[in-house]
Amino acid sequence: MERRRVGILGATGMVGQRFIQLLHNHPWFEITWLAASDRSAGKTYGEACKWKLDTALPATIAAMKVQPNVPELCEGELPKIIFAALDADIARELEPKFAAAGCAVISNSSAFRMVADVPLVVPEVNASHLPLIEAQSWRRESGGFIVTNPNCSAIGLVLALKPLEERFGIESLFVSTMQAVSGAGYPGVPSLDILGNVVPFIKNEEEKMQEEVGKLLGHLSGDSVAMLDAKVSAHCNRVAVEDGHTECVSIKFRKKATREEILAAWSEFAPLRGEGLPTAPEFPVEFDAAVDRPQPKLDRMRGNGMAATVGRLRECSLLDWKFVVLSHNTIRGAAGAALLNAEVLARMGKLDKLGVPTGAAQGQAVLA
Amino acid sequence: MERRRVGILGATGMVGQRFIQLLHNHPWFEITWLAASDRSAGKTYGEACKWKLDTALPATIAAMKVQPNVPELCEGELPKIIFAALDADIARELEPKFAAAGCAVISNSSAFRMVADVPLVVPEVNASHLPLIEAQSWRRESGGFIVTNPNCSAIGLVLALKPLEERFGIESLFVSTMQAVSGAGYPGVPSLDILGNVVPFIKNEEEKMQEEVGKLLGHLSGDSVAMLDAKVSAHCNRVAVEDGHTECVSIKFRKKATREEILAAWSEFAPLRGEGLPTAPEFPVEFDAAVDRPQPKLDRMRGNGMAATVGRLRECSLLDWKFVVLSHNTIRGAAGAALLNAEVLARMGKLDKLGVPTGAAQGQAVLA
Amino acid sequence: MERRRVGILGATGMVGQRFIQLLHNHPWFEITWLAASDRSAGKTYGEACKWKLDTALPATIAAMKVQPNVPELCEGELPKIIFAALDADIARELEPKFAAAGCAVISNSSAFRMVADVPLVVPEVNASHLPLIEAQSWRRESGGFIVTNPNCSAIGLVLALKPLEERFGIESLFVSTMQAVSGAGYPGVPSLDILGNVVPFIKNEEEKMQEEVGKLLGHLSGDSVAMLDAKVSAHCNRVAVEDGHTECVSIKFRKKATREEILAAWSEFAPLRGEGLPTAPEFPVEFDAAVDRPQPKLDRMRGNGMAATVGRLRECSLLDWKFVVLSHNTIRGAAGAALLNAEVLARMGKLDKLGVPTGAAQGQAVLA
Amino acid sequence: MERRRVGILGATGMVGQRFIQLLHNHPWFEITWLAASDRSAGKTYGEACKWKLDTALPATIAAMKVQPNVPELCEGELPKIIFAALDADIARELEPKFAAAGCAVISNSSAFRMVADVPLVVPEVNASHLPLIEAQSWRRESGGFIVTNPNCSAIGLVLALKPLEERFGIESLFVSTMQAVSGAGYPGVPSLDILGNVVPFIKNEEEKMQEEVGKLLGHLSGDSVAMLDAKVSAHCNRVAVEDGHTECVSIKFRKKATREEILAAWSEFAPLRGEGLPTAPEFPVEFDAAVDRPQPKLDRMRGNGMAATVGRLRECSLLDWKFVVLSHNTIRGAAGAALLNAEVLARMGKLDKLGVPTGAAQGQAVLA
Repeated sequence: MERRRVGILGATGMVGQRFIQLLHNHPWFEITWLAASDRSAGKTYGEACKWKLDTALPATIAAMKVQPNVPELCEGELPKIIFAALDADIARELEPKFAAAGCAVISNSSAFRMVADVPLVVPEVNASHLPLIEAQSWRRESGGFIVTNPNCSAIGLVLALKPLEERFGIESLFVSTMQAVSGAGYPGVPSLDILGNVVPFIKNEEEKMQEEVGKLLGHLSGDSVAMLDAKVSAHCNRVAVEDGHTECVSIKFRKKATREEILAAWSEFAPLRGEGLPTAPEFPVEFDAAVDRPQPKLDRMRGNGMAATVGRLRECSLLDWKFVVLSHNTIRGAAGAALLNAEVLARMGKLDKLGVPTGAAQGQAVLA
Repeated sequence: MERRRVGILGATGMVGQRFIQLLHNHPWFEITWLAASDRSAGKTYGEACKWKLDTALPATIAAMKVQPNVPELCEGELPKIIFAALDADIARELEPKFAAAGCAVISNSSAFRMVADVPLVVPEVNASHLPLIEAQSWRRESGGFIVTNPNCSAIGLVLALKPLEERFGIESLFVSTMQAVSGAGYPGVPSLDILGNVVPFIKNEEEKMQEEVGKLLGHLSGDSVAMLDAKVSAHCNRVAVEDGHTECVSIKFRKKATREEILAAWSEFAPLRGEGLPTAPEFPVEFDAAVDRPQPKLDRMRGNGMAATVGRLRECSLLDWKFVVLSHNTIRGAAGAALLNAEVLARMGKLDKLGVPTGAAQGQAVLA
Repeated sequence: MERRRVGILGATGMVGQRFIQLLHNHPWFEITWLAASDRSAGKTYGEACKWKLDTALPATIAAMKVQPNVPELCEGELPKIIFAALDADIARELEPKFAAAGCAVISNSSAFRMVADVPLVVPEVNASHLPLIEAQSWRRESGGFIVTNPNCSAIGLVLALKPLEERFGIESLFVSTMQAVSGAGYPGVPSLDILGNVVPFIKNEEEKMQEEVGKLLGHLSGDSVAMLDAKVSAHCNRVAVEDGHTECVSIKFRKKATREEILAAWSEFAPLRGEGLPTAPEFPVEFDAAVDRPQPKLDRMRGNGMAATVGRLRECSLLDWKFVVLSHNTIRGAAGAALLNAEVLARMGKLDKLGVPTGAAQGQAVLA
Repeated sequence: MERRRVGILGATGMVGQRFIQLLHNHPWFEITWLAASDRSAGKTYGEACKWKLDTALPATIAAMKVQPNVPELCEGELPKIIFAALDADIARELEPKFAAAGCAVISNSSAFRMVADVPLVVPEVNASHLPLIEAQSWRRESGGFIVTNPNCSAIGLVLALKPLEERFGIESLFVSTMQAVSGAGYPGVPSLDILGNVVPFIKNEEEKMQEEVGKLLGHLSGDSVAMLDAKVSAHCNRVAVEDGHTECVSIKFRKKATREEILAAWSEFAPLRGEGLPTAPEFPVEFDAAVDRPQPKLDRMRGNGMAATVGRLRECSLLDWKFVVLSHNTIRGAAGAALLNAEVLARMGKLDKLGVPTGAAQGQAVLA
């Protein structure tokens, strides 16, 4: 089978590097275009990028020429599938240009996550929201669209929450995070700020977590998403961990749940099983019964970095239950999340007619 | 003024070392006796102890002979004031022996904290509980008694809570901690467990926090303490920080409180001011208005390690308010807490007649 | 092909766990026996072991019953190939018992490394020393023998040195290490000792490095090894790194070497290429031209953790050249080193007739 | 006694903050002027500076207005003593302007350290070089001058070396460093580069160490310094330590030295004792006999951060002796070093006639 050609916007950053790592040798996709800021454009990727992963930078990628991040300046044919790893400010400007050029923009940025007709999706949780793209004006005019995945701190959490929401209903929720430094990109957090320290603040993070959880666990209603009706309160902290966000959760359900019912909800949660998606873990939520797990160093790579680990399920003296959830923030929480979105879109046929206007009627039809 | 002679039980451990550091050159107390386990007894302190603090071990202390931890085996006169830094199991066996020998046992251990007639005290919070000692049988029979301070994770928290409880009443509370490794003593946490990692579990810690907060904020009722009527839910985590426990708090009050009222409650909280206690900070709770404070590395030494720092006061979407509190776990949270208890006891005259039975009648009178 | 049955002595420790990780699904070897101290014997491995690796403990291994570490108490048949991951004191007592029982003891311990008729081997460096086993009395009497690999700090170094010694001759050497905490096992280094700190001392480490380098780069002479005639001075330090020893080297050659000649010596060094050994990296020494490499976090997993990375080759103002070498201390420096020794021994046929006395004459013949 | 008014150039950086910390309440000097880059000028210091020290920013300093870093734009009177904490590129441009304006520029920058008529001084080592200032053209024309202190990695080293050079003569020297992140300023080293890692490279650091040691231990000869005739080879590394540079040294003397002689050289080294300099430690070199010292976390604050600690003295199998030296890199190695230079200059009367041309003749006289 011929692989679909894909490009990466923001290819030199931490998430861009993860895209390269995960896409290299991917059975469905092939990297044919890498773009970065003006500072990098024109250099080879090997020259432009300070590679920070512990697997080797593939030689073929290192030799590729970094392109300007403008559709029109693409040398050769612009791939129609674009993975975007841009800061929000830049994403806000650039991603629409690529969508308007007929591209499927699979974005990791926060810029458009909360826009009504932009799907904010974790496939195991709400792949059903993806048809929202048909309501996008870019889609109608060029076939292009934008799909987003959530903030790295929200992804592991909603994986753990989804099976609980389905069975018991969520009424309210506390979450207190201990987030890895890679979540801030590179150079990101200065070592003087985090060695032997905790920083109990990450800009806009609590707001993002709270609102994104509501959209992810909400349901599609016409051409927008009705938010989950639950109170969510987040405390976000940065700790001296390289990769892996650990989150302490207290939760109140609408319907009483026993320990066994909760464990069953998690262990039976396998919504993508059998779909044959290369990046999907068989079980996206793994429960570890040890008293002191999950831990980022030991558990972040479960499911090739795509599974969330839950543990320490115990009763809460204030709400109903307490537990801890952990997931890899730059794989499951960023590049891997976007890649899985792309795989689901491919399965749905949404990557087949890019560059071709759908027209308004078709969009309405799909949503109806 | 002549200094009172004091001894240290468990002198070689991390908290024992802090006792030495804080008591050296103390204006009221003079170390004349150091005891440790059989392994150390008979050696000089300098030989027996792996000194781990960044101030020099005083030469006079280094030269002292470590005594067995048994009252009867004391060479020379046993001091009547004993600071105890023992593991709970050992404390349960040894502390009563010293109390029975007429000593004031100022304990940092968890062994007797929740016993009805043992005061669990943070002086700024509930010095009023100290007369409970008069109900102790040791007190009546020998003049000795046991007074305890709370777990290191509870101290900073109750300092921040006390002025809020007084003014607004606490209905419920969620707290998620990020605790320093020094809280586990030495050797304590293996480096392989915590470098680049988080361990979301500390044995018995959540239970201790929850019940100790209730007793600390409770009120003396006859010869025991009526616990605070509030729901407290704790999540306890270990992080790669040397000293300083950081805690994220969400809180619901019985009476609405504005931001200004909360800040005023904290800034006006100075219950020991003017008492002339050498170890008491002028303001035990300091608010920092910066968006990213408090931080353990920057704030743990406020008030010579005896002040708690609060910050990030903001509304909670589930309860009423959220904030972060930080305090030094081996100074404010352990040795300094015990030392301040001793200073208050001295001011109250409770260290004057040690070794002399009080008899039942007197004890009752004091409590009445 | 049927896999040879192997056992692991000291299976629950850090190196024991690495043995399990590396041997699981090994094409030549199959774990059929796990032994550990009395504390663990009788439990399942899953109960006895605090698994500390970031890959899952295989379920089949978790279910195995831990055996006592005594040949005679083996339930069922004792495997004839024993990987030993014991502390030196225990190794000194136990390893000879297994060798006497006809086993090939592939040891990671320091106990017998410097014994004259015990090969101390890194296959790429001195596989030629392996026939020394034929001089061992165990070999003659039972077919069993002991083979050792060096200290974790010496392995990466001798890999980098071997091609230089062959071409230019080493006259003297200065090496200063920055060693990972996993080298001290578990619980090993207390976190209070290493967080934000350096410990410029590791017991016996400098002595081991200095003498082991001499034996590894020496040549077989009759039934012992003539040590390399070079001065080696080592400084050993512990740093806050989980895995990967970094070493700064200054070196003086007997024959002048240019930068290009040194780089060629390293890049052409592939003594095991084409041997088909499953654990051997194609190139055991990889040069990285970046100014700031090698780094433990980025380079320790090269060659699946079996390649040493060299970098920063530059002139030395005192000796001839300076460089930095890095290798993974528990893979290349411990379990992987032993496993590669076993693979080479298998290729040489030394694992075929275990349990069968060779007699003195045969031993002499092999060495002649 | 009235305190001399001083200013700080580059006041908002890490070294600038240390200057403020050390100068606050200094008995001889009073901060009356703070300057920083255009980004900060015009703000109050409290607004302009992200204060990163664990002592409180003094309120009087926080309220001061940051001035532009240009002599002419000073509001009010420019102080004649300027502590400069600038990056080399900026120092190269700015420091001469202040010297030309008649100021004593006490610089921590590398910009002019190796210039022939600029003293590079650690007072305990080579205060005798200070009269070099009289040869500076700025001095003759305005009374102003530039004095520098060495790189943070060189200071602890030369303190340990000076008494050895005096008694035994140094022939050659290896040094391998493990340097704290604060040496790179703020934001400096990204946390992703150093958490769980070692970076075996610091730009230009090895060159600086090698040449600065030569000048510091050299002797004044006419109007320049004759470099020490010794071979010095440095390996410089960055480790995950906040403050404190640890250095492993191997050394060869011109004259044999016994262990006792070396220890005596260090313990008797007190060249500034009795001078009454506020910042000078009584003993600038402290030997610790423990096998595993010095360590940055435990020893960097000796002598209020101004003493170097040496330990692990043992024979070297390649040169003569090996030892470890540690010092605080932003106190002893930067701001404290400059401050001590200023104190010595004050004692020498060199801060009395600033702003007044000395003329060529006087300069020659002093040097003669």
